Amino acid sequence: MRRLALVASKGTLDGAYPPLILAATAAGLGWEAGIFFTFYGLDIIHRKKHRRLKVSPLANPAMPVSLPPLLAALPGMEAVATAMMRRWMKAQRLPEVSEFLDMARESGVKLFACSTTMGVMGIEREDLIEGAEIAGATAFLDFAANADVSMFV
Amino acid sequence: MRRLALVASKGTLDGAYPPLILAATAAGLGWEAGIFFTFYGLDIIHRKKHRRLKVSPLANPAMPVSLPPLLAALPGMEAVATAMMRRWMKAQRLPEVSEFLDMARESGVKLFACSTTMGVMGIEREDLIEGAEIAGATAFLDFAANADVSMFV
Amino acid sequence: MRRLALVASKGTLDGAYPPLILAATAAGLGWEAGIFFTFYGLDIIHRKKHRRLKVSPLANPAMPVSLPPLLAALPGMEAVATAMMRRWMKAQRLPEVSEFLDMARESGVKLFACSTTMGVMGIEREDLIEGAEIAGATAFLDFAANADVSMFV
Repeated sequence: MRRLALVASKGTLDGAYPPLILAATAAGLGWEAGIFFTFYGLDIIHRKKHRRLKVSPLANPAMPVSLPPLLAALPGMEAVATAMMRRWMKAQRLPEVSEFLDMARESGVKLFACSTTMGVMGIEREDLIEGAEIAGATAFLDFAANADVSMFV
Repeated sequence: MRRLALVASKGTLDGAYPPLILAATAAGLGWEAGIFFTFYGLDIIHRKKHRRLKVSPLANPAMPVSLPPLLAALPGMEAVATAMMRRWMKAQRLPEVSEFLDMARESGVKLFACSTTMGVMGIEREDLIEGAEIAGATAFLDFAANADVSMFV
Repeated sequence: MRRLALVASKGTLDGAYPPLILAATAAGLGWEAGIFFTFYGLDIIHRKKHRRLKVSPLANPAMPVSLPPLLAALPGMEAVATAMMRRWMKAQRLPEVSEFLDMARESGVKLFACSTTMGVMGIEREDLIEGAEIAGATAFLDFAANADVSMFV
């Protein structure tokens, strides 16, 4: 059986999609898949925060609708960029983050919350979505050691 | 035969170089190499945009010439940072992005455009450089499953 | 013997921790580990800079203490964000970057400085910490080809 091991270290909406898409695709192919959420990536499995991940309009000149930095820094522009990205994703019929997480759990994708960085990020056990299990870097390396594909996102 | 499988997810000039350098190096060593361009990374194989990828002077305190954020946010500073980075790369005789893409095609590096995120990024088939082929995450995982080294950039 | 091959491409404090934690964990498990520092990541093994890596308060909406962009861009806010992150890490008893580097050298973790990008980043041989060895992408790929886990951070 093939295995995919991912680290998800980003807590933005655009940073959350690649590991979720890859894990869902792998599970659909019958692979075993696991995601180790660490640092900002822990927000993706945070009970409340995963529903309001944001896109920054700043410091990403590759945003399809690019704004001059001073404009992008104005209050409310983060919400605008996030709403645009959500609309583009919806138009492509991409599931929402919460739907991806449901699919992941249903298809047996392992969701590991990094024990070392939970404290750094101020995240408690009860903040995590159901199905997430707390694990250390050792457990992740053990899992990844037997993976066919390992990637840090 | 060794194989390198990369995901290129960033659409900045500094984000484009690592996958291009790694793929060109691998091809030079006789490896099979493939890059899966997704999200912002699709700009690297966009017919027009790949010639004007930019560097953001914001939110990267490790830029060799670091500017205070308020100064870095001024109009024109993105162009200044990009010009500086291009000059540093030229001084090291690093090829330009377009030259790397030529080399990649000549040495048989596979250039996959992520079908799922092309729509999200508003990129059409005719926007892609010659030689790029549209593929899904499934095709990429198939390719990566037999790779010796897989990395997400 | 298991082997971990990492690329460290980020020069921020929050970007430095994941490769250092993973390499230290791997070494603790008896794995062979190597980190290839490239582009901004070279700052992590820069004699002076590794002690003052910073966190950007901009363009990361997932920062636990999130600030509106215009406020985050004010002079001094980068220092504030960095001090906060250092405090959170200290509270979790995470070693400092310099301590991680000491541990890495003591446990035989290979520290490769990317020869191609040292010039781009304006870093000379004498800027590197003791124990770092200069290597090209070819040497890294050779090392990674036999790794059980390879990741680009």
